[in-house]
Amino acid sequence: MRLSKIFTKTSKESTADASSVNANLLVRGAFISKTMSGVYSFLPLGMKVLSKLENILREEMDKIGSEVFLPALSPKKNWEQTGRLNSVSVLFEARGANQSSRKTNDTSYVLNSTHEEVVTPLVQQFVQSYRDLPTACYQIQTKFRNEARPKSGILRGREFRMKDLYSFHDSKECMMDFFLNKAIPTYQSYFNRIGLGNKTVVALASGGDFSTEPSREFQTLIENGEDLLFYDDSSETWYNREIAPCLAKVWDNSTEQEQKRVDVLGEGIVGVEELARFLKIEVERTTKTLLYSVDNERLVAVAVRGEYEVNEEKLKNVLNCKTLSLASAEEVEKVTSAKVGYAGPINLPENVQIIWDESCKNRKNFECGANKTNEHSINVNFGRDLPKPEEFYDVKTAREGDLNPKTSVTYKTAKGSEAGNVFTLFTKFSEAFDFKYIDQNGKAKPVYMGCYGIGTSRIMGILAEIFHDEKGLKWPANIAPAKFYIVPIGKPSEQSLEEAEKIYASLSEKNIDAIIDDREDASIGFKLKDSELIGCPYRIVVSKKTLKENSVEFTERATGETKLVKLKDLDQILYS
Amino acid sequence: MRLSKIFTKTSKESTADASSVNANLLVRGAFISKTMSGVYSFLPLGMKVLSKLENILREEMDKIGSEVFLPALSPKKNWEQTGRLNSVSVLFEARGANQSSRKTNDTSYVLNSTHEEVVTPLVQQFVQSYRDLPTACYQIQTKFRNEARPKSGILRGREFRMKDLYSFHDSKECMMDFFLNKAIPTYQSYFNRIGLGNKTVVALASGGDFSTEPSREFQTLIENGEDLLFYDDSSETWYNREIAPCLAKVWDNSTEQEQKRVDVLGEGIVGVEELARFLKIEVERTTKTLLYSVDNERLVAVAVRGEYEVNEEKLKNVLNCKTLSLASAEEVEKVTSAKVGYAGPINLPENVQIIWDESCKNRKNFECGANKTNEHSINVNFGRDLPKPEEFYDVKTAREGDLNPKTSVTYKTAKGSEAGNVFTLFTKFSEAFDFKYIDQNGKAKPVYMGCYGIGTSRIMGILAEIFHDEKGLKWPANIAPAKFYIVPIGKPSEQSLEEAEKIYASLSEKNIDAIIDDREDASIGFKLKDSELIGCPYRIVVSKKTLKENSVEFTERATGETKLVKLKDLDQILYS
Repeated sequence: MRLSKIFTKTSKESTADASSVNANLLVRGAFISKTMSGVYSFLPLGMKVLSKLENILREEMDKIGSEVFLPALSPKKNWEQTGRLNSVSVLFEARGANQSSRKTNDTSYVLNSTHEEVVTPLVQQFVQSYRDLPTACYQIQTKFRNEARPKSGILRGREFRMKDLYSFHDSKECMMDFFLNKAIPTYQSYFNRIGLGNKTVVALASGGDFSTEPSREFQTLIENGEDLLFYDDSSETWYNREIAPCLAKVWDNSTEQEQKRVDVLGEGIVGVEELARFLKIEVERTTKTLLYSVDNERLVAVAVRGEYEVNEEKLKNVLNCKTLSLASAEEVEKVTSAKVGYAGPINLPENVQIIWDESCKNRKNFECGANKTNEHSINVNFGRDLPKPEEFYDVKTAREGDLNPKTSVTYKTAKGSEAGNVFTLFTKFSEAFDFKYIDQNGKAKPVYMGCYGIGTSRIMGILAEIFHDEKGLKWPANIAPAKFYIVPIGKPSEQSLEEAEKIYASLSEKNIDAIIDDREDASIGFKLKDSELIGCPYRIVVSKKTLKENSVEFTERATGETKLVKLKDLDQILYS
Repeated sequence: MRLSKIFTKTSKESTADASSVNANLLVRGAFISKTMSGVYSFLPLGMKVLSKLENILREEMDKIGSEVFLPALSPKKNWEQTGRLNSVSVLFEARGANQSSRKTNDTSYVLNSTHEEVVTPLVQQFVQSYRDLPTACYQIQTKFRNEARPKSGILRGREFRMKDLYSFHDSKECMMDFFLNKAIPTYQSYFNRIGLGNKTVVALASGGDFSTEPSREFQTLIENGEDLLFYDDSSETWYNREIAPCLAKVWDNSTEQEQKRVDVLGEGIVGVEELARFLKIEVERTTKTLLYSVDNERLVAVAVRGEYEVNEEKLKNVLNCKTLSLASAEEVEKVTSAKVGYAGPINLPENVQIIWDESCKNRKNFECGANKTNEHSINVNFGRDLPKPEEFYDVKTAREGDLNPKTSVTYKTAKGSEAGNVFTLFTKFSEAFDFKYIDQNGKAKPVYMGCYGIGTSRIMGILAEIFHDEKGLKWPANIAPAKFYIVPIGKPSEQSLEEAEKIYASLSEKNIDAIIDDREDASIGFKLKDSELIGCPYRIVVSKKTLKENSVEFTERATGETKLVKLKDLDQILYS
């Protein structure tokens, strides 16, 4: 690649997402350019990196599936069939953009955020018998998600590149086998190849939309990671915060004397911090009580210590219910006789079950909503103001400082950024499309599926977050826009230029990616700075000075080590 | 590729677009699958072909531009800036698909049908001076077009793959030089490489939206081509019908006696054929008179011989106007005093200029609208019923049988399918974005641009249209899903299977694409038929019978030639 031929230039400052390390570096180095919020263009240098990331991924995926290319548009009826048309909150639709276009064709389509709704009926066309299973296919493609707040540069965008793999099986066992013994090891192999292996862990995470079973996330441990991970060293298992089992950080005032319970006026107080300040008590004395509608049949109250959030996934498991949603304002008002915001566990109707989180266990004289508008009860005590709970549960989202329930030791935590995920789908999608196969006994049975994603543009962002220093990027050799970055120093027709061109030609001939900074209007300082910002693994400077020694200056970006290499020895370094 | 591992199967019949050769063969061969009207999925075999087409194209494009990857979504304001948001009738928009998505973010975006609106402001960010020019970049990507009637399989879809190249220049000369001496030869080189070279011609076509200058289309000559091409052998130039200069097929009745003009009642007659039948006259005697609003300033009437259509592009050139649109029903009724459908050249107001097509020249006793509702004038004559026109023009769309105006000889015509196109954009887009560069004298000047497209999924369809016979596809070797198609015949553990696997392993090791039909449940006849339908260039059958001769059966798909090749000689054939 000749820098004189590409239209981009590096810049000293990045205006886009200055808070995000990856966006800052990738924009400054002219790898990407922000087209609008959450939507980026890949520039020539960025396209090189992205292509390498995707080609290596293709090699790995070819080992376990065949490549396909599914459309970005899909019929809405497919999404109605799975019930996701209205439930997926990031879903885009496409339709004619103007009157003449809508006159042409007024249908609106889903602009796919994921492809279960396309791949399931597609594979269904071909798979009839157990002999056709298992099978798997993948694609590398642009995905569209109407993210509320695109952030972190190319880590979370409205449009991004993704590899998605889908597998199809005749049994749960076969699905689990593929999940554990093919998908996960292939992912690990990929992350190893692109330099993320030793920084990426497998974490248990919520199955979310897809499944009640935990999914696995590949989490790359980085300082600015969006996710908080909890490590259980007894089983060597990482948990995403969203499902990490936990015991609340100890807060025990059980030796206190019981105080007189009082209901205190406190209008319009927002948040437990403010409430604690207002009441002049510790946050740990406060209680968050939320009301949920369970299976649209009954109401349940959930109480957690003030600084915690209710974890609906955990709550769902405790209640063993199908659906769970926050009670409506009307329901809350009816049950508590107060406006929303003042619910508490005291004097609730008998048919409202109370689920107590274990964080509330060893407290005396605690606070809770008074079930009266604008009022808070303080100095509440079990056994006096309300019955002592028969059981305490873990229905909260873990926080740093929480204990591992298995060892009762404070969890080690780390921040991570999701580099990939794998889901067991069971028969969720095959049942929606009535996708069955005929087993060996001639019986029709539902197909088991799995889905497995890696966001390749996101991976590029993660790599930038990890491989950089204050001067710029430091790409792994097989991902870098080029392995070698040649800087000729000299005026036109000087020998140094000719020598640099020779090296460039020789590398190009052997299909080794090289960049030559042949810009005539850039200063030496500018070129050297750019070489560091762009971050190819090796820089070769050719100047009058180095040629006097029959040498080039050879610098390794990762270590900063510089040495003079004799021209006659150069080939050995370049091609070894 | 192991056929036992991919989920697809060939089929005897294709239900999708049975009328289209490419869709029929590609669906039956399991290269593609129709997801919905105008939208296809690429299956493992099809993905192989598409990837090869795109990788060869990438190699060619890298010679003249750098690869980028622009987003599919773009801000509407960019399209407002070029005035195309409401004028492009195939434009899609994307927005939240459901209430919760629109609550998340209610912006709607353009889903790009082409990328001038993205690439122009992007390149503008980096290009300031004449030193930064010329430059060019390209991408290979999915495009979206809300086609009225998707047809011809993957030749015209609502979602398709496309390579688009954009070039930027400091002058018209530089733009023309790139257009003629870089873009066109590179396209030719690509079409040569994929086997379309000797079947693809360069035709002059309408600049359409982009430019008043003719564009060039690469037209592959195929029987089912959508476009009609006219060949001027005097200048060895092909014209797309839409701009071919022409003289109407001779129809001369000038020796007739003039008859008495009559106005005849004829209500609700649709089309000139029906009119001619009704009036018992030749179609050539009928006249089509259309009224146009020119530059929103004045009305013009255009008269062509009945069997022709008015060509607005030609008319625009004759009138040398900026805008041209069919007159509204109100305008027509005001000027002709009749309902729409009965306009004629007699007795029009003086301020309505009449443009006569030369097809009307040598006629006597012709028909035209009577400017009275439901009435047609017959036996109309120049010089008696209306003045003899001072000039005749060519304002019609050419038809087969028309004459070349340069030679007055009947045009040779051919049907073509557009394989690529190249446009000079001049300063149309740079002016919309105020994209200027500073020239050597410090003066700001607008940038000249060109754009150049090749639809790669479309090319796959064109290849299927050309390279097939009644048995199936016959891919060129470098485009085929695999060069070799190995058919082992025998029961498990027989030597033939082992031998076939050896050949497959040896090819795979050398990175030569091969397919092995290792399906256990497919009959020999089925496998052999599939090999022909899928159409890899060479088939290798290994059976007990061939092994008795220490040979394999080697068949060339293109010629059908079959021979026994000794195992010891096979390597020489495979790797030569």
